[in-house]
Amino acid sequence: MTKKTWKPKETYRAIILIQDGVGDRPVPELGGHTPLEIARKPHMDTIAELGATGLMDLIEPGVRPGTDTGHLALFGYDPYKYYPGRGPLEAAGIGVPLRPGDVALRCNIATVEERNGELIVVDRRAGRIRGDHVKILVDALNKTIKEVDGVKVEFYPATEHRVVMVLRGEGLSPRISDSDPGTAMEGHPVKKVVPLDDTLEAKKTAEIVNKVIRLAHEVLRDHPLNKERVEKGLLPGNAIITRGAGMVPRDLKPFEEVFKAKAYVVAEEATIIGIARILGMGAEIPPGSTATLDTDLDSILEAALKAWREGYDIIYIHVKGPDIAGHDADPYGKIRIIERTDEMLGKLMKEIEWKKTVIALAADHSTPCLVRDHSGDPVPVAIYAPTIRRDHVRKYDEYSCSKGILGRIRGVELIKIVLDQMNKPLKWGA
Amino acid sequence: MTKKTWKPKETYRAIILIQDGVGDRPVPELGGHTPLEIARKPHMDTIAELGATGLMDLIEPGVRPGTDTGHLALFGYDPYKYYPGRGPLEAAGIGVPLRPGDVALRCNIATVEERNGELIVVDRRAGRIRGDHVKILVDALNKTIKEVDGVKVEFYPATEHRVVMVLRGEGLSPRISDSDPGTAMEGHPVKKVVPLDDTLEAKKTAEIVNKVIRLAHEVLRDHPLNKERVEKGLLPGNAIITRGAGMVPRDLKPFEEVFKAKAYVVAEEATIIGIARILGMGAEIPPGSTATLDTDLDSILEAALKAWREGYDIIYIHVKGPDIAGHDADPYGKIRIIERTDEMLGKLMKEIEWKKTVIALAADHSTPCLVRDHSGDPVPVAIYAPTIRRDHVRKYDEYSCSKGILGRIRGVELIKIVLDQMNKPLKWGA
Repeated sequence: MTKKTWKPKETYRAIILIQDGVGDRPVPELGGHTPLEIARKPHMDTIAELGATGLMDLIEPGVRPGTDTGHLALFGYDPYKYYPGRGPLEAAGIGVPLRPGDVALRCNIATVEERNGELIVVDRRAGRIRGDHVKILVDALNKTIKEVDGVKVEFYPATEHRVVMVLRGEGLSPRISDSDPGTAMEGHPVKKVVPLDDTLEAKKTAEIVNKVIRLAHEVLRDHPLNKERVEKGLLPGNAIITRGAGMVPRDLKPFEEVFKAKAYVVAEEATIIGIARILGMGAEIPPGSTATLDTDLDSILEAALKAWREGYDIIYIHVKGPDIAGHDADPYGKIRIIERTDEMLGKLMKEIEWKKTVIALAADHSTPCLVRDHSGDPVPVAIYAPTIRRDHVRKYDEYSCSKGILGRIRGVELIKIVLDQMNKPLKWGA
Repeated sequence: MTKKTWKPKETYRAIILIQDGVGDRPVPELGGHTPLEIARKPHMDTIAELGATGLMDLIEPGVRPGTDTGHLALFGYDPYKYYPGRGPLEAAGIGVPLRPGDVALRCNIATVEERNGELIVVDRRAGRIRGDHVKILVDALNKTIKEVDGVKVEFYPATEHRVVMVLRGEGLSPRISDSDPGTAMEGHPVKKVVPLDDTLEAKKTAEIVNKVIRLAHEVLRDHPLNKERVEKGLLPGNAIITRGAGMVPRDLKPFEEVFKAKAYVVAEEATIIGIARILGMGAEIPPGSTATLDTDLDSILEAALKAWREGYDIIYIHVKGPDIAGHDADPYGKIRIIERTDEMLGKLMKEIEWKKTVIALAADHSTPCLVRDHSGDPVPVAIYAPTIRRDHVRKYDEYSCSKGILGRIRGVELIKIVLDQMNKPLKWGA
């Protein structure tokens, strides 16, 4: 046999660029083309031309993903199995360290009146009480209500009137109803929380939440800040109401443990940061991010490059703008943010040794301008890697990529294909 | 920002045309082409040309579906999870209202002789006993055998010598064997029904069925009609024998609850009507249907249009002929029924505002002429929708559609893609 002239297996690191909602349907104003087909995006097209392409269903064909379930899939976790619910996502999004088995609920500081022993909701947001006031009230709650029936209770201020409640202990369940009666039902009582299934865990958790709501009212009712607010003609923040209970699945393992790679997420949305943190990934919203068409893409690039230099194996970069444009039925806006994102990609490729890097282009779902909402249409995907099987597709868009060598893949599969192209694949069998 | 010139998101209704067994393999008589390739079918080709196309495995690649499992998948239910078995399908097909947890069995009225305490099967069909006689005997059974071991027992006459038995109560299981020994074993005893797994439910259900068989013989043995039959030289219908026990899965939810849309099924076969009824869908066999190549397609069209005018969201139209032609190895017959079905599709498109409608062409399985039976070959699928991503495929056949943008999808996915194109997708996440 001839002498081997090549080196042993090399491993690579990866960049995954996620354009939120970038997939579209044909737009009449664009001559029946999609924004991706019209946008000038030489760097994305280079990735498609030198790489492998396909279409990707984030969840399954025809099923409309949310940004949360879409990203869970992109991070390699089956949303049907691992979706933690809204409470934990909001909690993680504001930096609450959550562990498997924790139950988290979204709460409002609200205004209630006692009538015949019932708490009547006067205002679901206590007149949109300010964040600094919420912080004072939350401190009072944390000082007094530390444990109920052997379960630890913690409160965290979120944005404006919002608060997150975390229950931590044995035998909890997220299968409980909301106490928040909803905006249409202001003037009605705080709803009793009931278990949503027959388990002892759900029964116990519902009882604890009902007790916490009672206790919270006792703590807040006579709080000096509320007396002050009433004197000033403001509504008192004298209750909490709860919704969106969720639990971090007990069998959820951190990203690094599952995929044997360290990942960092630069994203424009707290929900995505929340998911990333629950999975133990590094994560930040860059300072210049506005999550709009005018976002500071240089700031996003800088955050990604910083993580790259710190040696992370995989960097996810999330750009929100295309989704906003889709919701606004604004195809030209979508084209503009795609083109700006392409420029950012070009700068990124100059800054790193990109030919020795796996670069994947993806999206968390389609947001077609004609639908003005997320849809179940698959998204185009393109993966460049130094040793990948290239196909003949030369452009990154819905039609071109449909002819690619990847075929039609699922969202949860992307990270596995990327790891394989990094030459660090998951292995099954011997 | 420029003025938006289009309207807010529109929703559409859908027609799904199912040509039973239409998929084929190359036929030497047709120069190596398939019947779909040769048939003149301008309307189906229009759907393909203006829509998206692909290939569809009803269950999984290479697995041969039945009409029942194929349709279960087309209705959006995973056959591996929700197939209720033959008994419930036959029951539902004759209009028996079944509920989750009910066990149904296919029965024959048979002729037996008692020998040494055993029931020997003399004729499995009691000399193909007439339906009006069966009805009289079934009435006698229902009058006497109402409950066994706390479980309700009901009998329903089906076609000719066939009867359906329904067991309704707590703790039943479909995992029991047949008592019908089969045609080859006439002259042998009625088989003892045994549990097919270790559960108490299967044991209990088997015991109940054995008791019912004994009781039924006691009721029928001395029935005046049977005395009359014997005097006339006819075989007495003095026993029931059972097979095909099945249960409507306890977690089966109605179509409308799962997919948030009202569907109507116009089909040529009782099994399909049975499945549709179990799923709570509207369903009928149109009066002119013969389920052959000569069926009255105008009658089928009329039934579909009536349901359309009644406002159903989704109409399934089933044409049986192509399957019959496949079983008969009759490629020219298959071409003819495809061409006649295309004319019906053309009339349908004239009657509705079809450009504002989602129209899908599908099949429940392939029945290749060279196989003379169902095969595991995928079927071509084409979906027209007002805002769908069109591909470059211009014909509806096995080869053309293999190049389409839908790629290779699964049967259960079709309804989800159709709902997404109706702009009423299932949602998962926020």
